[in-house]
Amino acid sequence: MLSQVLKKTQLLEKIAKQRRAFDGDSLIVRKIIAEVRSGGDEKIKDLTLQFDHVRLKELRVSIDDCVISNKLLLNAISQASKNIRSFHLKQLPKSFDHKQNDGTKVSLKWRTISKVGVYVPGGNYPLLSTILMNVIPAQIAGVNNIIVCTPPQSNGLPDPTVLAVCNFLGVSDVYQIGGAQAIAAMAFGTETIPKVNKIVGPGNRYVAAAKQYVSNRVGIDMVAGPTELVIIADKTANPTLIASDLISQAEHDKDAFTLLLSTNKNIIENTKNEIERLLQKISTKNTATESLKNNGVSFFAESLDECIEISNQIAPEHLSIQTNNMETLYDKCIAGAIFIGQETPVAWGDYWAGPNHTLPTSGTAKYRGLLNVLDFLVPYSVTKAGANQKSVHAISLLAEAEGLMGHALSVNLRNGDES
Amino acid sequence: MLSQVLKKTQLLEKIAKQRRAFDGDSLIVRKIIAEVRSGGDEKIKDLTLQFDHVRLKELRVSIDDCVISNKLLLNAISQASKNIRSFHLKQLPKSFDHKQNDGTKVSLKWRTISKVGVYVPGGNYPLLSTILMNVIPAQIAGVNNIIVCTPPQSNGLPDPTVLAVCNFLGVSDVYQIGGAQAIAAMAFGTETIPKVNKIVGPGNRYVAAAKQYVSNRVGIDMVAGPTELVIIADKTANPTLIASDLISQAEHDKDAFTLLLSTNKNIIENTKNEIERLLQKISTKNTATESLKNNGVSFFAESLDECIEISNQIAPEHLSIQTNNMETLYDKCIAGAIFIGQETPVAWGDYWAGPNHTLPTSGTAKYRGLLNVLDFLVPYSVTKAGANQKSVHAISLLAEAEGLMGHALSVNLRNGDES
Repeated sequence: MLSQVLKKTQLLEKIAKQRRAFDGDSLIVRKIIAEVRSGGDEKIKDLTLQFDHVRLKELRVSIDDCVISNKLLLNAISQASKNIRSFHLKQLPKSFDHKQNDGTKVSLKWRTISKVGVYVPGGNYPLLSTILMNVIPAQIAGVNNIIVCTPPQSNGLPDPTVLAVCNFLGVSDVYQIGGAQAIAAMAFGTETIPKVNKIVGPGNRYVAAAKQYVSNRVGIDMVAGPTELVIIADKTANPTLIASDLISQAEHDKDAFTLLLSTNKNIIENTKNEIERLLQKISTKNTATESLKNNGVSFFAESLDECIEISNQIAPEHLSIQTNNMETLYDKCIAGAIFIGQETPVAWGDYWAGPNHTLPTSGTAKYRGLLNVLDFLVPYSVTKAGANQKSVHAISLLAEAEGLMGHALSVNLRNGDES
Repeated sequence: MLSQVLKKTQLLEKIAKQRRAFDGDSLIVRKIIAEVRSGGDEKIKDLTLQFDHVRLKELRVSIDDCVISNKLLLNAISQASKNIRSFHLKQLPKSFDHKQNDGTKVSLKWRTISKVGVYVPGGNYPLLSTILMNVIPAQIAGVNNIIVCTPPQSNGLPDPTVLAVCNFLGVSDVYQIGGAQAIAAMAFGTETIPKVNKIVGPGNRYVAAAKQYVSNRVGIDMVAGPTELVIIADKTANPTLIASDLISQAEHDKDAFTLLLSTNKNIIENTKNEIERLLQKISTKNTATESLKNNGVSFFAESLDECIEISNQIAPEHLSIQTNNMETLYDKCIAGAIFIGQETPVAWGDYWAGPNHTLPTSGTAKYRGLLNVLDFLVPYSVTKAGANQKSVHAISLLAEAEGLMGHALSVNLRNGDES
């Protein structure tokens, strides 16, 4: 449980190796995509029978009657939505106009993506937070056409809570299909399922491979690997709280990656003991145990600087800083989301705080950020030239330097000069 | 030249078919990437001999002595840089802090990508504007490590003007490699070439396929297809100017796509005649002619609304609106960059106006925008939980509804509650 790695190089090798395991594409996924493109709705029904063991009559699900009957849960969903909404509302970008010295007017404008598909994974429990985190930013961006694909459960229908949350958010276009076939359907369209411009939402490795594969045809948010948490802790940290955070990450998935970096050996030892103790208390014990055994690591570091150096090489999805003076550390850190202080469990952000929980994994935080409102907006430029002889001469010179004489001609003609 | 298509459905089919031709990946590209990953610098030298017919001693090029000796050209480059800089400076996003009702503090912060690779294609002429358009936004975002890859010419070195423009911008890390091997080198790193976090810049279809292929490992700006221009013109337009704009697009590449949508048949006929006449004046006549013959189309539309409807289905890279009241039309239009009025040739934007000329092609403007400063920045969140019992109960309820009992435990423990 939470195996100790002694050398930094070994630690980084272990992580690199784990991440490689999720690389590459998949032949079966390519085959499914090709089949859905040519076979449409009927093929999707075949694939659903094959993979989900459900014989579908209709792909579309009626959700009008789906409501959340538990009042406390409804209140919690409602408050979480408000938090997510208020944080994402502040992300709306401003268009601007700008005038260059020669009178050329240029603007940067933002256009809303017109059709978005949200994939909501199946599994044993309703991923209601996934729906909130993917639908609300799209709605704030002004997306009018949002569709949801989610696989049927073994009883032949998607989870009723998933449907109820869709209804709660006003999303009525829901299709009961999952896996690579859902991604293919949204990317290319079928008789029933509309082709969208962008696909967002998490999924298993088949969904991830399918998104990667269609990403030259349709926008995608990101290709998600297994979830990750790095905790940086000094002697002031609380091993019970650290243990609970590591467990909460590990229970997601046996492939979830967890790493405790600490400058204090007692903290590491006590955290291990607390993990053993706390695991006994939860029903997800088996998954969490397997994950912590195979992909949970602890590392004793010489200094907080070393912790940050290691964490930044990993660029984890989640980073929790449970140290003294943590507020001075975080802006040196590379991670999708950063959680400050022992009072802040990652779960606070998963459901509640407001920022998106759709985050870059596998080190992609080095170049892409959390899902946000801009993911549903497209910038474009508007240009109106200033009538300026000097500019015409300069542009013409630049075009000629590139050998593009037609470009030069088109600019010179604006000056009445046909040479 | 500029073949007339009579039916809207035929027009859209023709465009879809043309775009399909550039779809998919390439076996040879996968092979090159695998070879560079395993063979490093030596393999790159082999591939450069094979594809560029140049025997390289060093991959890195010294550019210290490269300057632009033509004073007028230097001035033009300098002014273009100023315009690009001033427009991109306005794109810098603001971080923000936000406090939720329960006291939870959340922030959206922006981090600069640390290493960026810019690909500059070879060819017969120096693409100096490509360097400006890709390097300046990265510099404004604060990227400290920018490397440039550009293929050697047949004389064994990259174009001296390309090197001089790199020097002008203060980019000193330049490598003389091109094609898929350059993309592979920047994505995975070699003995000499550093691995980058994001690759930007245009290229031929091998470069495009390589970028698509490595995009699960490294950020990319976009996968560029052939360049595109749609012009919407009414009876007030000037056929000579339209002709010059179509020619300037067509001279890029025999695969460049040009479409004139007009509500006036005379404008279409006169434009065709003007194309024939103007083509005689330019040295790029052959490429432009081939392109306009095979991929140049005109379409007579019933109304401006129909023009916009067709153009929006295409979502072209460049859209030029040469009509009366054009300022009221453009915000209904979907395109990477929009050029307003007959006084604004596309070339004005290619070199001068300020907005980026790296634009979405092949209809991807429906979900992604022009290259901009945000492409070199990464948003991330920082969360500090408010100590609030009500929130703890609500989050715990949400976690339990998802079956994630470890999440609930981690939150309850913050309330001193170990259940």
